[in-house]
Amino acid sequence: MTEREYARRRAAAREALTARRLDGLLVSSPANLRYLSGFTGSNALLVLLADRAVLFTDRRYTLQASGQTGCTVRTASGSLFDAASKWLRTNRINRLGYDPGQLSHASCLRMRSGAARLVPAAGVVEELRMVKSPGEIELIRRSAGIAARAFAGCLRLIRPGITEVELAAELDYRVRRLGAEGAAFDTIVASGRRTAFPHASPSAKVLASNEIVLIDMGALRAGYCSDMTRTVFLGAPAARFRRHYRAVLEAQLAAADAVKEGVSAGAVDRAARKVLQASGLGPAFVHATGHGLGLEIHEKPRLARGEKTLLRAGMVITIEPGVYLQKFGGIRIEDTVAVTRNGCEILTPTSKELLTI
Amino acid sequence: MTEREYARRRAAAREALTARRLDGLLVSSPANLRYLSGFTGSNALLVLLADRAVLFTDRRYTLQASGQTGCTVRTASGSLFDAASKWLRTNRINRLGYDPGQLSHASCLRMRSGAARLVPAAGVVEELRMVKSPGEIELIRRSAGIAARAFAGCLRLIRPGITEVELAAELDYRVRRLGAEGAAFDTIVASGRRTAFPHASPSAKVLASNEIVLIDMGALRAGYCSDMTRTVFLGAPAARFRRHYRAVLEAQLAAADAVKEGVSAGAVDRAARKVLQASGLGPAFVHATGHGLGLEIHEKPRLARGEKTLLRAGMVITIEPGVYLQKFGGIRIEDTVAVTRNGCEILTPTSKELLTI
Repeated sequence: MTEREYARRRAAAREALTARRLDGLLVSSPANLRYLSGFTGSNALLVLLADRAVLFTDRRYTLQASGQTGCTVRTASGSLFDAASKWLRTNRINRLGYDPGQLSHASCLRMRSGAARLVPAAGVVEELRMVKSPGEIELIRRSAGIAARAFAGCLRLIRPGITEVELAAELDYRVRRLGAEGAAFDTIVASGRRTAFPHASPSAKVLASNEIVLIDMGALRAGYCSDMTRTVFLGAPAARFRRHYRAVLEAQLAAADAVKEGVSAGAVDRAARKVLQASGLGPAFVHATGHGLGLEIHEKPRLARGEKTLLRAGMVITIEPGVYLQKFGGIRIEDTVAVTRNGCEILTPTSKELLTI
Repeated sequence: MTEREYARRRAAAREALTARRLDGLLVSSPANLRYLSGFTGSNALLVLLADRAVLFTDRRYTLQASGQTGCTVRTASGSLFDAASKWLRTNRINRLGYDPGQLSHASCLRMRSGAARLVPAAGVVEELRMVKSPGEIELIRRSAGIAARAFAGCLRLIRPGITEVELAAELDYRVRRLGAEGAAFDTIVASGRRTAFPHASPSAKVLASNEIVLIDMGALRAGYCSDMTRTVFLGAPAARFRRHYRAVLEAQLAAADAVKEGVSAGAVDRAARKVLQASGLGPAFVHATGHGLGLEIHEKPRLARGEKTLLRAGMVITIEPGVYLQKFGGIRIEDTVAVTRNGCEILTPTSKELLTI
């Protein structure tokens, strides 16, 4: 991202502050900090004001912050909250927005002991982050490409005898060898009946013949996440598996078809749910259809029942219907997708046709 | 860990509550939750009372929590804080301790809207966690062994031509192949002048001849962290490097020699600092000598200037003096160490003699 892009984002955040009659915004979450300033260190606090942005950090990061960000950098030796609080008092800043969900109670009390009047203002930056710039979409496209290549590179390893944990380690290793900082989240590899748990973490279980294998993975590259799930079968699946796979795939395609600017997030969820209900799999679809992603793996909007948020061109979301049946197992198919004016661009290049190994 | 061990820990926590005249403790941090109950899921809240322990979680984890923990499990469909708050009111629980640094301001307000009177009580569980049981030390020993074997397995890769990021990916991959859940923290690989940054993250820089290479890594195994740093030289180092390496190693050994039950954390720091000061490297030693570790990579105590905490047998700490000189580079040597009554046990089995490649 260019400094101009960060300046553009800060300008957009300032507009939101003006609308809420705030003098400034206290930014403490790493993703929001990075979004507004480019800073990637682990310890900083940003105060965004109408005429400037002040970044508080410790001396480990002074040089990095000055180079990375277009902000005024202030180095604090103790608590950043104390330093910010003191600075706000000296500079007579009054109504400062903050996110009560992102500040610990202790930090909140620290800030309040200064003169600043903290005003709850949740989600200001998250709201902006929902719609990605073309540059951000390109980064997510590359991240999705890396995950897809790592998946393809590991296909020959998906064989009876390898454990779930081993396969997950291989996937993560490849993601990094392909240039990612790492996995976007803890890679899921589940096999057999364990696929019936939507959030199974990889275990020491050995993959066996005639089993479902579910892989949910993503890359983190240049700070941006991607997310994909594929379900494969080791051996020749029975008709029931083929039928359910087909239903999940149709639900996934129907949801992707429903995506375009102006459609509600709930309508996309409904499109997937409708297909699975028609196949008698409605009760087996126990989670939402998808979620936004970007600097974080879970961002707004949620693509869930009744969600009224209207999709906008530039949003990047997952579409990931799945079914989970206790003695049978689970099937999920997930792509990362960018919303466009007339539809969407599928950023995950991997085939969704049933793969039997 | 056995259920008896968890019960023992809860009993110890209850004693601390009685001493503070609290009716119970609200536990929200994942490490504290795991310590007191064995629960490893991502979403739970524990209310520890004199006569029982109630674990609130969502339906994804109901089965897991009932199997993993000796607690009463309550499944909530919405906010766990709302559910806990309601339960506390119904059960007329009054003075409930909580850690203001571990609860968001929003969650705190949610809890307070119920009837429970929240009383600040920071660090109750962290205090207990400082001293490890023999079983915990064994887990950290194994974690340290895995990190050491991964380091040894990657030695032949530390060659001109490999990038820092690639080497870090290889180390992390091996740590997992050796049975760890993953790295205990983001592995540091720094080379050349980049070693002068104490917290350099791996970059695309290629390792070159006649350079320092600093590797700081750890394993996370069965929930427990280890931490080690080694500094090697690619080629034949000049006398200055050998001299500085010797000084850091002597500082590390002096600090380890100082460790035993009853000695203050500050005294261990002083032992390392004294050696480096005598070598004229005092100002180049810009961080503390070490920190506790266990379920988290940074726990109490801190081994820093003036720290008065007295070491106790069973504490597990790092000893990691280092020097950082801007145009020269950095040298750090770090072991994970268990405090004993008469000294310490070095859990990191890797040699600390200067390694030139």
